[in-house]
Amino acid sequence: MEKENGANPSSETERWQFGHNKAVVAAGSRSLREAIYKVIACVEETGLRPVIPIANGDPSVFPSFRTTPIAEEAIVEAVRSAEYNNYSPTNGLLSARQAVADYLSKDLPYKLSPDDVFLTAGCSQAIDIVISALSRPGANVLLPRPGFPMYEARCIYNNVEMRHFDLIPEQGWELDLEQVKKLADENTVAIVVCNPNNPCGSVLKYHHMEEIAKTARKLGVMIISDEVYDHLTFGSNPFIPMGIFGDIVPVVTLGSISKRWVVPGWRLGWIATTDPKGILRKTKVVDSIRSILDITTDPATFIQGALPQIIEKTKDDFFNNITHILRDAAELCYNKIKDIKCITCPHKPEGSMFVMVKLNLSCLVDINDDVDFCSKLAKEESVIVCPGSALEMKNWLRITFAVEQTSLVVGLERLKLFCERHEKN
Amino acid sequence: MEKENGANPSSETERWQFGHNKAVVAAGSRSLREAIYKVIACVEETGLRPVIPIANGDPSVFPSFRTTPIAEEAIVEAVRSAEYNNYSPTNGLLSARQAVADYLSKDLPYKLSPDDVFLTAGCSQAIDIVISALSRPGANVLLPRPGFPMYEARCIYNNVEMRHFDLIPEQGWELDLEQVKKLADENTVAIVVCNPNNPCGSVLKYHHMEEIAKTARKLGVMIISDEVYDHLTFGSNPFIPMGIFGDIVPVVTLGSISKRWVVPGWRLGWIATTDPKGILRKTKVVDSIRSILDITTDPATFIQGALPQIIEKTKDDFFNNITHILRDAAELCYNKIKDIKCITCPHKPEGSMFVMVKLNLSCLVDINDDVDFCSKLAKEESVIVCPGSALEMKNWLRITFAVEQTSLVVGLERLKLFCERHEKN
Repeated sequence: MEKENGANPSSETERWQFGHNKAVVAAGSRSLREAIYKVIACVEETGLRPVIPIANGDPSVFPSFRTTPIAEEAIVEAVRSAEYNNYSPTNGLLSARQAVADYLSKDLPYKLSPDDVFLTAGCSQAIDIVISALSRPGANVLLPRPGFPMYEARCIYNNVEMRHFDLIPEQGWELDLEQVKKLADENTVAIVVCNPNNPCGSVLKYHHMEEIAKTARKLGVMIISDEVYDHLTFGSNPFIPMGIFGDIVPVVTLGSISKRWVVPGWRLGWIATTDPKGILRKTKVVDSIRSILDITTDPATFIQGALPQIIEKTKDDFFNNITHILRDAAELCYNKIKDIKCITCPHKPEGSMFVMVKLNLSCLVDINDDVDFCSKLAKEESVIVCPGSALEMKNWLRITFAVEQTSLVVGLERLKLFCERHEKN
Repeated sequence: MEKENGANPSSETERWQFGHNKAVVAAGSRSLREAIYKVIACVEETGLRPVIPIANGDPSVFPSFRTTPIAEEAIVEAVRSAEYNNYSPTNGLLSARQAVADYLSKDLPYKLSPDDVFLTAGCSQAIDIVISALSRPGANVLLPRPGFPMYEARCIYNNVEMRHFDLIPEQGWELDLEQVKKLADENTVAIVVCNPNNPCGSVLKYHHMEEIAKTARKLGVMIISDEVYDHLTFGSNPFIPMGIFGDIVPVVTLGSISKRWVVPGWRLGWIATTDPKGILRKTKVVDSIRSILDITTDPATFIQGALPQIIEKTKDDFFNNITHILRDAAELCYNKIKDIKCITCPHKPEGSMFVMVKLNLSCLVDINDDVDFCSKLAKEESVIVCPGSALEMKNWLRITFAVEQTSLVVGLERLKLFCERHEKN
């Protein structure tokens, strides 16, 4: 054996049979992380001026957005109890699923049971599981443009065909339902709706949501309703969960504590079947979800253990304060952008943490496209903005206003200076 | 539109295009969770006698196995700092990766860098990611029989062919390397080694590990070394990481704090490329891993933040105490099993938390196979044992001795009574 291999294997010609998985690399390249890391890599300054990150929806690092002490202490209590060091059950702890069911039921015309709730390690794992549960050879899913690229990445990974419908900026980013009807065929299994919307900052109206539900019903497809920004609204449209139309069409609702409690790093999310007629059970979608959960990692058990306290004890004051900060920030952001010549904002943000703005390339010199814009902005001004092409919207930008106000002001001023410097005479 | 759909959609014939994903359900049915849930469902007693769970490797619920206060307080400090509420970087926090690199390097002849470490949400996510990174059309992976079924489940999910080689009970559960050589072909990408071994309780010797490394080198395949039970040894063989043979063959080492710190619910694990020649980088396996991490959920950021404290500050006393308890429990378990006529244990456990025992069906009446044995044992004695067929070993059982000693004694006594009752005259 030793002689066969030779005394010094390193002297042999290397022959290795393993390598990379191209499909996986293709899926990863569609991730928002990759797109934003590329922009960050363009920053050249070292400490002269602070880098202003207005690309990601994660304000948790800023003092104004610190989560409630009630949530922190719920975690402390759960860890110190030593009652939650063990593996979690497949669907999550019963007490935590009950808390989510009660939380969601407050806004629904029917009551969810804990069996309608599956806990996930953040909303991104919820997306992973739902896309995987629905995938089958030839299936296609209807995705919004612009959208959140985790859907695209997971469709590529699971070999599910994507078909993109447009959100219409001139109509408050409502869905182009005529296009939806044209795109769907007998292999369409689901339509993804994100409300409050990332990246557009829009909030859907009741009537339009009912139209979406009826369209999905007619097409025979379920709705995946991404409500990770639930209740983060500050315009005239209130947050309405898609689940209220669950008697028209089965809705799988995705959510998490990441945004409303400003703790995205805690990785606690959920999938809820808001489906009073039990169609997702009958069609075995629920079996698929459970099977994937059986072979998938879980949210940390003690964070699940803390969840009932977090949900039940957080005061309205905390939520109102966050909404208030976001309202002011959105207002400030919208007004500052109006003052910048080469970008336009078609719709004032009224929910989530983002706004989409359009680049007017014709009034800029030396800028090829949105990626080039973001790269040069990072290099020259140390401001990080998300290129629209990462969200299927070439030559648009996604800006978040969910940062400390001082940072937002500085970031937008630098953005303005950058645009002026690159403006055509 | 409303007329088209009818005023009452529920009166329409239901036609839904979505359904379950058969591949996913098939993968889930191979999970240990499903197998053990089925056994638990057979329990009939309600509160008369406590249920004795000796199926799962999760002693965290027992007082003797409570984790160190140092780990609990590290979490408390991290949460209260509010410095780790944000999203994690793709590969994990630098400080946490550095801590894992230092931890693993202590037992290696070379030094790992933080760039060799990728943090995962427990070791099960590490398995998910590594199998996914290696999958490509036609690829096959060599898996041990018996083994940990998450590998099988993830191979089915990722459409990777599995080829099983035997562990030889009469040789201390060493790998049948002649069989390994026969099973491998030009599409074999990896061989999975689990050490200390789940489910056999065996610990590999240096010489045999070197043989494994040389065999893998000759075949051109990498080693996936599952070391989730690292350092949990209590026989004559010490724990040796496979990474010490990293100059012979590239090794991907999987680990976590779940077992050694007895906190499986905290979901903190890692993938480490113990590969001093950088072959996994050259062959782009590392790119694949990174791409999947880009589109995958992360371990909670504050648990990552606590990791350096947990690893650096935990006292040897804590580890020694756990090892001591496991040694006594393994001894007790082995001796009690020797007294039971219809089951035999070929190898005294010397590591991990498990032992494999063989059912002698010929001396039992009314028992068809291992699943039937476990179902009836659960029904009649409220003792939960894992059927070997869930681990590719029909008519064997996996028993864990990592439970409170009083429970272990009661569980094994009931097991003995059960066997006596079902013994042939």
